[in-house]
Amino acid sequence: MEIRLTSGKRLSAHEGSDLYQALKGNGVYLVSSCGGKGTCGKCRVRVVEGPCETVSHGKLGQKERAEGIVLACRTFPKGDVLIEIPKESVLVVGDKIAISKSRDLFELFESFSVDVSPVVKHLCLDVPPPTIHDNISDVERLKRALDAAGIKGVRFSHGFVSSMAGALRKAGWKIILGYTEDLEAVFVGSADGYNDKYGLAVDIGTTTVVVYLVDLADGRLVDVGSTYNSQIRHGDDVITRIIHATEGGGLSELRDAVVGDINDLLNPLVERNSVERDDIESVVIAGNTTMVQLFWGLDPASIREEPYIPTANFFPRWKAGTSHVAVNSQTPVYTVPCVASYVGGDIAAGVLASRMHKRSEIALFMDIGTNGEIVVGNNEWLMTAACSAGPCFEGSGIRHGMRATEGAIESIRIDPPTWEPELGVIGDSQPLGICGSGMIDAISEMFLTGIIDQRGKLVRKVKTDRIREGEEGPEFVFYRGDRNVALTEVDIENILRAKAAIYAGVSLLLKEVGFGLEAIERVYIAGGFGNYLNVERAIILGMLPDLPKEKFVFLGNTSIAGAYLCLLSADLRREAEEIASKMTYMELSVSRRFMDEYLSALFLPHTDMTLFPTVAELMKK
Amino acid sequence: MEIRLTSGKRLSAHEGSDLYQALKGNGVYLVSSCGGKGTCGKCRVRVVEGPCETVSHGKLGQKERAEGIVLACRTFPKGDVLIEIPKESVLVVGDKIAISKSRDLFELFESFSVDVSPVVKHLCLDVPPPTIHDNISDVERLKRALDAAGIKGVRFSHGFVSSMAGALRKAGWKIILGYTEDLEAVFVGSADGYNDKYGLAVDIGTTTVVVYLVDLADGRLVDVGSTYNSQIRHGDDVITRIIHATEGGGLSELRDAVVGDINDLLNPLVERNSVERDDIESVVIAGNTTMVQLFWGLDPASIREEPYIPTANFFPRWKAGTSHVAVNSQTPVYTVPCVASYVGGDIAAGVLASRMHKRSEIALFMDIGTNGEIVVGNNEWLMTAACSAGPCFEGSGIRHGMRATEGAIESIRIDPPTWEPELGVIGDSQPLGICGSGMIDAISEMFLTGIIDQRGKLVRKVKTDRIREGEEGPEFVFYRGDRNVALTEVDIENILRAKAAIYAGVSLLLKEVGFGLEAIERVYIAGGFGNYLNVERAIILGMLPDLPKEKFVFLGNTSIAGAYLCLLSADLRREAEEIASKMTYMELSVSRRFMDEYLSALFLPHTDMTLFPTVAELMKK
Repeated sequence: MEIRLTSGKRLSAHEGSDLYQALKGNGVYLVSSCGGKGTCGKCRVRVVEGPCETVSHGKLGQKERAEGIVLACRTFPKGDVLIEIPKESVLVVGDKIAISKSRDLFELFESFSVDVSPVVKHLCLDVPPPTIHDNISDVERLKRALDAAGIKGVRFSHGFVSSMAGALRKAGWKIILGYTEDLEAVFVGSADGYNDKYGLAVDIGTTTVVVYLVDLADGRLVDVGSTYNSQIRHGDDVITRIIHATEGGGLSELRDAVVGDINDLLNPLVERNSVERDDIESVVIAGNTTMVQLFWGLDPASIREEPYIPTANFFPRWKAGTSHVAVNSQTPVYTVPCVASYVGGDIAAGVLASRMHKRSEIALFMDIGTNGEIVVGNNEWLMTAACSAGPCFEGSGIRHGMRATEGAIESIRIDPPTWEPELGVIGDSQPLGICGSGMIDAISEMFLTGIIDQRGKLVRKVKTDRIREGEEGPEFVFYRGDRNVALTEVDIENILRAKAAIYAGVSLLLKEVGFGLEAIERVYIAGGFGNYLNVERAIILGMLPDLPKEKFVFLGNTSIAGAYLCLLSADLRREAEEIASKMTYMELSVSRRFMDEYLSALFLPHTDMTLFPTVAELMKK
Repeated sequence: MEIRLTSGKRLSAHEGSDLYQALKGNGVYLVSSCGGKGTCGKCRVRVVEGPCETVSHGKLGQKERAEGIVLACRTFPKGDVLIEIPKESVLVVGDKIAISKSRDLFELFESFSVDVSPVVKHLCLDVPPPTIHDNISDVERLKRALDAAGIKGVRFSHGFVSSMAGALRKAGWKIILGYTEDLEAVFVGSADGYNDKYGLAVDIGTTTVVVYLVDLADGRLVDVGSTYNSQIRHGDDVITRIIHATEGGGLSELRDAVVGDINDLLNPLVERNSVERDDIESVVIAGNTTMVQLFWGLDPASIREEPYIPTANFFPRWKAGTSHVAVNSQTPVYTVPCVASYVGGDIAAGVLASRMHKRSEIALFMDIGTNGEIVVGNNEWLMTAACSAGPCFEGSGIRHGMRATEGAIESIRIDPPTWEPELGVIGDSQPLGICGSGMIDAISEMFLTGIIDQRGKLVRKVKTDRIREGEEGPEFVFYRGDRNVALTEVDIENILRAKAAIYAGVSLLLKEVGFGLEAIERVYIAGGFGNYLNVERAIILGMLPDLPKEKFVFLGNTSIAGAYLCLLSADLRREAEEIASKMTYMELSVSRRFMDEYLSALFLPHTDMTLFPTVAELMKK
């Protein structure tokens, strides 16, 4: 069977596979939050001609059905077909994503006043060459030279020994030995033709993967690469992926996907900077607990089942060869330690990069990405929780939701007299959907202008035809075009749930340690949102606590920043480990009090308006 | 192209490949000492019909050529051919080889009065299961339980951690943890359904591979398997194999061959004894230095080049997964340490099994196998050397030489009046060739009866038509039939060279430490010869020193016995390491004095007859 696309591409498909799978098999990935289970309604395509059997229409409306739109994952071609894939259904994997400028990164490192001390140390050795009268083996000879240099107990892996005999002779026995701080030999290089050594800091996010190539001699950031985590094709959130790994047998598929992303990012980095892969002598990865377990190919099943236990929080220093990252196979991979199943090494790295663990002031650290993790504390104590906010701010579960890429509505102003919205669209192009910051703008504007009430319901008496009964119930249409962009009441409910989870988490964590909001002297905002979030609007929404704007600090991607710090310094690796050890984790999902806090926070901005005095003030206007 | 065999088999061959390679490609292995280089003349086959191009006849005589006999490695089929393979040209790989009865093995172990202490220790742990309030990760939970049991610093490999989460839950958190004496975790088992644990002792000889399956609870030898080392197809001796590994790019081929042999032996052992592979928790291997390096896939190139340096003598405890031995991938593999490039772990194991290192009497240990290694010493000192005797006693380089298998002449008596030989043939079948003990018998008989002189030359005035001018010069025919079995003067010269190398080594080692032969209180004979050698005959040959017969002790395969001892006891592993450390290696190949000793020993029995008084007595008769 042949699938033709209106773009001209011709693909082949096996009998019995659905369109979603068939396209995937040909390298054409569709957006899908549910991983092809017919529930998210995102993998819309149009059957132009040819026989197809559609077993379910899911959330598709009458109009779309009439236009020939189907869910690819519920539609089976029964012969040669011609398919049109709308732009918003295409998952662009491997696209560059903007990341924050990192010129301040080395300044951040310097602020800690610690030495540069990567995982791998170097030792120059002038090894006496073997003779007929001094004929001990290469391994014993190297050990003897190390003994003479006062270094005892270095371990030699099979991979190291396999290449050692050749390397010693190539270097004429005047060598540089690379070995880890816990005494595992990594490489033998020539003392004469010495190459600079490099490290990789890697942030494995549920949505994106970022790689920093760092010169380990001076800590200089050489180059940067970033891409979507191609596990996305198996679902947007960690839970869907855990299900795929455990029930779908997709563990190695998920592992290969993310390691493949890292290796794909590495190719241009080493090429354009003329770096030898063998000279990449250390790797640090930071990610949430599920991402890290998947990276290491460990079954994440028990993360999802009460009592939510990961296989490891503190990972041994396994080798790059074990992880399949395409650098020297002996290179140690340091995993920034995790705290619990839903607070990972990305958060430990984030706290490290924020330096909140060094100061006496009480700070709140919020990482609002695909999930929402929060930390409260200072240099004496740290409390943390995960809020199960879900990935709605990244577009998942929102009818016209999308990521902050070209075509996404990212800002909205509504003019009350006319109720006409003024839209800011990424790339100034025709709107395709609405991203997280757009959702926050939309709801706060709709709330302040009275289009929605405190419960998030559309107020019918508002005189505008933008409020209408859509196929999924009441909705407000922001953009009218080939494809409308609207928020439905169901969407608004989902967004309120997410913001309520975040606020309830913050509130409960503070209560747990006996503090009120007023105790917070600083709020660090990290994660994908860290660069775009409008604080006033997020306060109106009731997502952020009602604190003076100057207390909020935007840190961008603190996971990669923390990984970079750990790459450079043994002291900072110890600090990351202390952070992860001393952080007290609160499991919100089983807390009755969390449920109370959450229900109170489901309103706009909150049932208790005394918590949001500035919003109360605005409402009066 | 098709190759038909007279046995009826039909094989396919690629254009351009020689018959040796073409047969090998179809799993039919021919005897070959040179590995298919046209020099050893062993891969004889007969072309019955079909076009063939023979580029060289090597050592083949006129008569054989007339019969259509060719060297398979020098003959290229040019179309469909019919080939006859004589029985003596077939290499039987995978055949069972008789090994010495091992009921005394445990007695040997008991004679050391040490505890049973395998590499892997067991610890019962009742781990508190995780709860929502005690939610540390599996790795941290296991570490905490180990800490509580007083065991700190256990390392967790990726392979161990990968299977740990499931194993802990399957066992209901009441576990047995297996970990090595140097604190590497090996397995998690259930404390309730506890299985017996097993170990493998493996002797990797140049010619044969032997595997013992041992119950580690009581040290009982459960079962035994043995086979030819299928590296033989790439040459009989270590040098030919090193060349194949380095120049022929055959390193992984050689590694796969010997590991494949071990795994092939393992299959019936685990099946007929109902042993789970995962319950084989430790492996000990002993072999000569080249065999051990090939087993671990390490390039043996520098073993062959002056100053003859192996990559390692003392091997780290790498894992079974790294070696590809098909047991639990986390199982540690202990390699009995080697001494130098030509004195390996088989000799350290042999000295251990002989117990000569425990006694004050000065002993001589001789392992005459594919090569000849000797050790002199006692509980205070040990000297060792390798004699480069070569594999002639195993049939290599001898026109009608063969291994001690069916059809081999193993004993010979010659009746002087008629000069007719009385032959003992293994399996009482028609003689196909002559094996090592047959050669020793033949030469000592020929010498005592005056058929050959002290230089090993045939005495023409002896009145028998068994002495004749053969195609390779003068020869003595022992058997006349379809295929004659003879020893040529060239064969005798080769045998004298081998015995001279062994005797010269012994003599020089003793002189080096200032002792004469009379100082030797015991002679341990190990290796393949250990079971069949006729001491008086070997003294007449001048291979063994002229000492009273009661001083000679036959030990059989001491390499496997020593591996068995190391499998059972930490103390004995330490003893093996001390033996390998304290043994002083003498490199004979660069010694001028060795050359002098060797030339003196090229006579029968020796130029200095005062060294062989009993032989001088016999000669008078």
